[in-house]
Amino acid sequence: MIGEVTSPLGRIEDCPRQPDEDAPGATLVIRGELIDALKGLQPGDPILVLTWLHHADRDVLTTRPRGDSERPVSGVFATRSPNRPNPIGIHETTITGIRGCEVDVAHLEVVAGTPILDLKPVLGRISER
Amino acid sequence: MIGEVTSPLGRIEDCPRQPDEDAPGATLVIRGELIDALKGLQPGDPILVLTWLHHADRDVLTTRPRGDSERPVSGVFATRSPNRPNPIGIHETTITGIRGCEVDVAHLEVVAGTPILDLKPVLGRISER
Repeated sequence: MIGEVTSPLGRIEDCPRQPDEDAPGATLVIRGELIDALKGLQPGDPILVLTWLHHADRDVLTTRPRGDSERPVSGVFATRSPNRPNPIGIHETTITGIRGCEVDVAHLEVVAGTPILDLKPVLGRISER
Repeated sequence: MIGEVTSPLGRIEDCPRQPDEDAPGATLVIRGELIDALKGLQPGDPILVLTWLHHADRDVLTTRPRGDSERPVSGVFATRSPNRPNPIGIHETTITGIRGCEVDVAHLEVVAGTPILDLKPVLGRISER
């Protein structure tokens, strides 16, 4: 774990399913000793936030996508359900501000206190890497 | 860990940096007790493979992107370097075949024996979720 999410989302029931479905802004509080790893990130950058969805049920192997009883049952690897053997969340968002080890992002659909595993830039074209 | 990669790539030095840079096909050997979690996946599906890059140096906080000495030093969270505090790889590829718990994919830029953490579908438009 490299840090923890600060967010107005206090309960699982309040979380939208995806960040482009009205998730609020959040702050990524990164561990102080990792500050050098943030060098080069800046407001406006699109970023992937990887989280550990600590409220997930790791024993679930099948689900109905989006809880819709009219859809067929799928294996969790064919869905983005948080309930899965290793409940890693991948969230694409945009940096809106950085203050030391605190990184503000535009949208994040996880509850306050969610552990952060990694941050990665969104890849552009091969020529820009 | 939900499984392990079988690949012709035996050495780190042989791995391309990204899957669209000539990575060979690979087979994801998923643990037998998780077979139900694969239900619904089929050849042709685009998929994200999350791996644990077990050869990475977890103490590295800064790097020069792609080892280019003319680029400025960046924090690892601003790069896709495998060396980072939690060396999780995200690989976008396409399923080419499934036989029980073995999932063939078109391209994967990791060495044989790399642990697999998760599989997720690539998200389409909101209306298709």
